[in-house]
Amino acid sequence: MKYTEMSAEQLKAEQECLSRKLDEYRNMKLCLNMARGKPGVDQLDLSMSMLDVMHSEVDYTDETGFDCRNYGKMDGIPSMKKMFAKMMQVSPEQVMVGGNSSLNMMFDTVAAFMYKSPVEGEKPWMEVKDRKFLCPVPGYDRHFGITEYFGFDMIPIPLNEDGPDMDLVEQLVSQNASVKGIWCIPKYSNPTGITYSDETVRRFARLKPKAKDFRIFWDDAYCIHDLTDTPDSLLSLMDECKKEGSEELPIVFASTSKITFPGSGVAALAAAGKNFDMLMEKYKYQTISFDKLNMLRHAKFFVNFDGVMDHMRKHRELLSPKFDLVVQKLEDSLKETGVISWNKPNGGYFVSVDVMQGTAKKVVQYCKEAGVELTGAGATYPYGKDPRDCNIRIAPSYPPIGELDTAMDVFCVAAKLAAAEKLMEE
Amino acid sequence: MKYTEMSAEQLKAEQECLSRKLDEYRNMKLCLNMARGKPGVDQLDLSMSMLDVMHSEVDYTDETGFDCRNYGKMDGIPSMKKMFAKMMQVSPEQVMVGGNSSLNMMFDTVAAFMYKSPVEGEKPWMEVKDRKFLCPVPGYDRHFGITEYFGFDMIPIPLNEDGPDMDLVEQLVSQNASVKGIWCIPKYSNPTGITYSDETVRRFARLKPKAKDFRIFWDDAYCIHDLTDTPDSLLSLMDECKKEGSEELPIVFASTSKITFPGSGVAALAAAGKNFDMLMEKYKYQTISFDKLNMLRHAKFFVNFDGVMDHMRKHRELLSPKFDLVVQKLEDSLKETGVISWNKPNGGYFVSVDVMQGTAKKVVQYCKEAGVELTGAGATYPYGKDPRDCNIRIAPSYPPIGELDTAMDVFCVAAKLAAAEKLMEE
Repeated sequence: MKYTEMSAEQLKAEQECLSRKLDEYRNMKLCLNMARGKPGVDQLDLSMSMLDVMHSEVDYTDETGFDCRNYGKMDGIPSMKKMFAKMMQVSPEQVMVGGNSSLNMMFDTVAAFMYKSPVEGEKPWMEVKDRKFLCPVPGYDRHFGITEYFGFDMIPIPLNEDGPDMDLVEQLVSQNASVKGIWCIPKYSNPTGITYSDETVRRFARLKPKAKDFRIFWDDAYCIHDLTDTPDSLLSLMDECKKEGSEELPIVFASTSKITFPGSGVAALAAAGKNFDMLMEKYKYQTISFDKLNMLRHAKFFVNFDGVMDHMRKHRELLSPKFDLVVQKLEDSLKETGVISWNKPNGGYFVSVDVMQGTAKKVVQYCKEAGVELTGAGATYPYGKDPRDCNIRIAPSYPPIGELDTAMDVFCVAAKLAAAEKLMEE
Repeated sequence: MKYTEMSAEQLKAEQECLSRKLDEYRNMKLCLNMARGKPGVDQLDLSMSMLDVMHSEVDYTDETGFDCRNYGKMDGIPSMKKMFAKMMQVSPEQVMVGGNSSLNMMFDTVAAFMYKSPVEGEKPWMEVKDRKFLCPVPGYDRHFGITEYFGFDMIPIPLNEDGPDMDLVEQLVSQNASVKGIWCIPKYSNPTGITYSDETVRRFARLKPKAKDFRIFWDDAYCIHDLTDTPDSLLSLMDECKKEGSEELPIVFASTSKITFPGSGVAALAAAGKNFDMLMEKYKYQTISFDKLNMLRHAKFFVNFDGVMDHMRKHRELLSPKFDLVVQKLEDSLKETGVISWNKPNGGYFVSVDVMQGTAKKVVQYCKEAGVELTGAGATYPYGKDPRDCNIRIAPSYPPIGELDTAMDVFCVAAKLAAAEKLMEE
């Protein structure tokens, strides 16, 4: 029976029943975590043999004969440039392979533009006092953290099933020279799992920004992170931009953090022409070179891009039962309420749940009391403020499936309890 | 016979003889490199077994049981914090272990202060239009590159045998609030190889800067890179600052780039109290964590700090014959001229030569024509401008000793020829 159709008495009975259940969980002293998109231990085990491919007897040169142990090759070794080019749907010469973190490369890029605009003659972003960044919501808290750190006015953009509200994006970008960028996770978006439609990608390529130094931060974090036999597909933004003569717009980011080891993977960015040259020029001041032995370790482990895709299938085997469980629990337990909704992603790392409006903080708090840690309510919005207080991001990857089962039971009870209480107030 | 005592005829004979020798070298089509402080292949071979200590059957947890393969532990694993603390003469809790490059950590630190002053309430450095940085000279080109990139007015400070001219440093720092920092390589300085005296270190600790956000960038790049049985010793700046109540002043940097693998080593910074907290707070926006598997690889390879020092003795065995050769060649060939001088370092990576005033560019050019690449003349000064055009940095580590022998012969001929020509003009 839908909660909205319940009588006051029925609601009260439901609330009492759920409250007792939550108390039972509170007494169990659980310690479960669905907060961050951390790969599970079983997923990390998939890459252990990568540690064996680099040893003391190994050939430590890249395909050009370069000694990967020493300084040099700022843009990375050719085999990894090629591998990332396929992942990111760009040309190898547009790729710079960096350190262990694509987030760090995004931070570095915004930081660089704060001090020097990517376009000669334009003001550094720091001098644009009312600088703005577009933030499709719900989105990734660490993206928003970077633009908050650098003092951007963050404008939330509704994220629909086919991508950000492009009417709004086009309007803001074309009319306002202080709009300097947009955060995008175009495939299996964090947290809603949606993939931008072909038309959305084309509209991005056709943007005519008022700010000459407007840039699209295209975080392709989940580009090959499929969970089903019918994976989503994404157009290459760089290809579309080439057709439109707007190749200066995108900066594409990706990493192997959720392919091999988080923290010990390899990250990369891709940009075209002057954009690329300008970023490389900046990196020359920043460092001498990144970890090419780790690049070589990855290159030897995967052999080629097919090797990467084979490896991703193993991740999928471990992850999809967890996602199936989460979605099944939500279906079984929450569908009947009629006031809670969620997505069923074809890939990525999250299930996004919209609990009843005005209850997300309470749900997270109830879960915490019962020993289940979730991403903070509001984290998927700029400044941590979800105006409807309803979005919660569930990260099923880290807990073993048994723990996930219990954690989801707790979550469902908490979500229903908060909804019943809310309705009783009204 | 000293060049300054030669008659015009003697000088002409000398010049003709040297010119013929240089032509002979030009015809040999040599390809030799003494430009950068790159470890030699034999040095890199010393660390190859480090690649064996991390393999698929290894324990991948740190001493607290933390899984080093996953996200987290922003400040690095405890064993590496301890190891760097000994290297940098600080406390382990003051250490943050980062990525592969201490230069990158220096760049990040200046970049952070450009946007947010390290002291609450002070202007970000970017808003200080006449911001200044003190640059002991001759010094490290990549330090100067960072402060040039960020638009600092760089003030050269003479570097004496016991460190920078502290009278001048004290005067500038105490009187000018726009002086925000100083670059220091306190031990085996790049390129002169000198080590700061105890008194110099104490005077740094006693600085009373007019700018509350003045910081000492203490690049301890060669802290354990001894070349002799009588190594230099350096006081701990952090200890001295503690005594003086000025612990907010120093930020110490070091790495294993010239201990294990350049580019695939581990870097660290150290700072005290609020300074440390502020940098860590910034890093939380910048990345999720650095490469802890590589930290663990280093920790397992060295076991403890004694292991690091044993390893450094092996480097010394390979490097000291090269330094001996360079200094011997200079003695044998250039001493008689009376117009060229150099240092004989107890450690570090360079021999700094002062050729005759006004000839450094010419010497580098002559060497280049004969196939010997040197660091560009002037590189050891801010903006690449050596006012006396006399300092040349020789990096003996990379070429095999046979090549180094030939390269030094070329260098000596070029240095003498340029000097003779200069004297003939006068």
